[in-house]
Amino acid sequence: MQENYKAKAYDILKNLNIEEGDLIEIKKGDLRIRGILLPSYSKDERIFVIKLDNGYNIGISIDNISEIKLITKNSSKAQESERKEVSRNGAKSEIKIISTGGTIVSKVEYETGAVRPALTTEEIVQFLPEINEIAKVDAEVLFSILSENMKPEYWVKIAESVKKAFDEGNTGVVIAHGTDTMAYTASALAFSLRSLQGPVVLVGSQRSSDRPSSDSAINLLSAVTTAKYAPFGEVVVNMHADSSDTYALVHRGVKVRKMHSSRRDAFQSVNDKPLAKVLWKERKLVMLDKSYMSKKGETTLDAKFDNRAFLLYYYPGLDRDFLEHILTNTKIRGLIIAGTGLGHTSSDYVELFRKATKDGIFIGMTTQCLFGRVNMNVYTTGRQLLDAGVTPLEDMLPEVALVKLMWVLAHEQDLEKIRSLMISNLVGEINPRHTLDLFPRWSYE
Amino acid sequence: MQENYKAKAYDILKNLNIEEGDLIEIKKGDLRIRGILLPSYSKDERIFVIKLDNGYNIGISIDNISEIKLITKNSSKAQESERKEVSRNGAKSEIKIISTGGTIVSKVEYETGAVRPALTTEEIVQFLPEINEIAKVDAEVLFSILSENMKPEYWVKIAESVKKAFDEGNTGVVIAHGTDTMAYTASALAFSLRSLQGPVVLVGSQRSSDRPSSDSAINLLSAVTTAKYAPFGEVVVNMHADSSDTYALVHRGVKVRKMHSSRRDAFQSVNDKPLAKVLWKERKLVMLDKSYMSKKGETTLDAKFDNRAFLLYYYPGLDRDFLEHILTNTKIRGLIIAGTGLGHTSSDYVELFRKATKDGIFIGMTTQCLFGRVNMNVYTTGRQLLDAGVTPLEDMLPEVALVKLMWVLAHEQDLEKIRSLMISNLVGEINPRHTLDLFPRWSYE
Repeated sequence: MQENYKAKAYDILKNLNIEEGDLIEIKKGDLRIRGILLPSYSKDERIFVIKLDNGYNIGISIDNISEIKLITKNSSKAQESERKEVSRNGAKSEIKIISTGGTIVSKVEYETGAVRPALTTEEIVQFLPEINEIAKVDAEVLFSILSENMKPEYWVKIAESVKKAFDEGNTGVVIAHGTDTMAYTASALAFSLRSLQGPVVLVGSQRSSDRPSSDSAINLLSAVTTAKYAPFGEVVVNMHADSSDTYALVHRGVKVRKMHSSRRDAFQSVNDKPLAKVLWKERKLVMLDKSYMSKKGETTLDAKFDNRAFLLYYYPGLDRDFLEHILTNTKIRGLIIAGTGLGHTSSDYVELFRKATKDGIFIGMTTQCLFGRVNMNVYTTGRQLLDAGVTPLEDMLPEVALVKLMWVLAHEQDLEKIRSLMISNLVGEINPRHTLDLFPRWSYE
Repeated sequence: MQENYKAKAYDILKNLNIEEGDLIEIKKGDLRIRGILLPSYSKDERIFVIKLDNGYNIGISIDNISEIKLITKNSSKAQESERKEVSRNGAKSEIKIISTGGTIVSKVEYETGAVRPALTTEEIVQFLPEINEIAKVDAEVLFSILSENMKPEYWVKIAESVKKAFDEGNTGVVIAHGTDTMAYTASALAFSLRSLQGPVVLVGSQRSSDRPSSDSAINLLSAVTTAKYAPFGEVVVNMHADSSDTYALVHRGVKVRKMHSSRRDAFQSVNDKPLAKVLWKERKLVMLDKSYMSKKGETTLDAKFDNRAFLLYYYPGLDRDFLEHILTNTKIRGLIIAGTGLGHTSSDYVELFRKATKDGIFIGMTTQCLFGRVNMNVYTTGRQLLDAGVTPLEDMLPEVALVKLMWVLAHEQDLEKIRSLMISNLVGEINPRHTLDLFPRWSYE
């Protein structure tokens, strides 16, 4: 059991007959730390990793430890076998946890020191016995990839797994996913799975689960809380709301974006309010937005994508050469432009776009500002682009518009039908009404 | 003079001998509105446009007006001739206002109803006599284009004009610019103009100047305040800080982004604090960040750009075909990737990038999260990309990295020299220390 605690750390534990999962107390200087001993994947053999009551993991160097006491033996093990007992008795799960990889289920790779997806969801459940107090869960490792390697064929597999989970009687689904492309997958699932029977909750972690300060435990706990108690049938992203672990936020899958490369509270709703907040300690879901899609009778699955769509981030000085190559020498069927301001590019490109739309290529306009709506009627350039056949896509995020276009291209061939679907609000990807409080900013008053 | 007030409105004014620029009082129902009569470009001939004391313009329908009174004759005209007097006396200007176009100097196009850049800076100064109370200004219309049509050759012209303005003895420069690509131009000027003698202040407007609720007057006033009182020699963006007109913020040109398509407070500092705030009513500049580049003896000009650089916004499902075309069939010399999270793409592209960097193409990594820093040492994919020769670009915004690359490519041919310049912090485009308060978010506590 202590195989992860080598050398000195290992000897200490062996002598005290302490195993992973045991509740222990460590005295170090004036400090008393009580928590559950976790497996350590640290290269440093002189470190214990302890899971504290508040959900945090901390690493403690064995140097200068004056006392280690066993408090309770192996509580998670006991609960795990209890859980297995339930399974054997044939009781069905309520919440399915589908693991796809990412930091929430990752560990440090010994050779390179880098983080690799590895731990199974079962292992996580083992160290999060509280999950079983919320709902009967069942875990499945669908695949184990870093989310930057996600692609449309995986979106299809995840969508199929979700459909299967509902068909088997689960009332909610949690998907453990890397954070890098979590928002793209959320959109893909939202367009592929309709009339949902229950919530589909994507969750990730910004710190890997074996690390001190990992947020994976708290995030998974709050995702299961959302999957259990949410009144909606929507695809959502459930992530940390702040950097001090007080609560999580539930974002509509087609209105969320990773807005920071490393912070725990990296995910933000853009052009929409979060649907709910989760008080993970109280295991309580508080709705913030009452306009959600309610649960339906039977989930429908229609997951196919055509990736002959390109996302162009417009910038001044964009060489015509690049754009012409993409529009004329590739098998492109659609282009999403992240234009400037209200939805512009240089008017130099108007004729190129006119030719492309005449050739049947869909061109949709979003804004690289991310916040706000495109409005191509205000300025001359916008009107010229409209006249050239460019379709304004309201307040859709560029990434969401792209995923939607991949889905639409796989369903329609005719440009007018593609256009009509792209401007229809299929699953809440367009928010017709913006309020002032949708834009976050600092105050320097 | 009243040529813009036609039909009924025109008759009323003619009878009262009221001209544009006069201070008048209008009684309508219980309301008394006092302000300066502005030229109206509205198609509606039954509307007066009045500039209020608080800097706002409002449109008032002539219907149900019970009284119009002339309070003071033509105050702006008097001041304008006073200013011309000063000029004739040979007194030099302190602040140069260079107009490039955009909404701050735009009017409604009669044929289409869309907004077109048209008003000269002089016309604006005419209706903003307060500007001359802050500093002796001189205005120049460099060109009159919507900023979405901005391109590197125009950046060069603006940089040359700024250099000339300092050489002529001005201590600060204000550049009126469309907001769509203002941040790109700010970066271009920051890399082209070094050891600045004084502040170079870009300013725009989110509502055109002839519209009720235009913010152009306030913005221009605060930009001139910044140009006059700022202790720094940096290129900055001066824009509204909130939606209630209390103050403006001064953002470092290489750390700012238009984050909303239509709000008055659309501009935000990203990965950096704003340098200062401007209390435009008090004509006061309050520094928020003490670490700025101080004014230098003589501004140097080195403005050239090579636009054989492409900005790739990575997304799952990106077809290899698009990327291969750009990397192998165009005259590309450099690629900036807006990658996911800490700086990733799918590992499927690693070998393609390795080939490209071997062929001498610079590939730099930024994050599409926008906030936060890239760190390619944490995950396996990041390490693979590093090994393939991809250069991590710290916390640089994708757009800033792109403009910098265009500048660097015009100065260096050798890949190692290009790389070395790209990772050097030339003008504050890299912020080595992030604090928690750099990330804006809502509180739902």
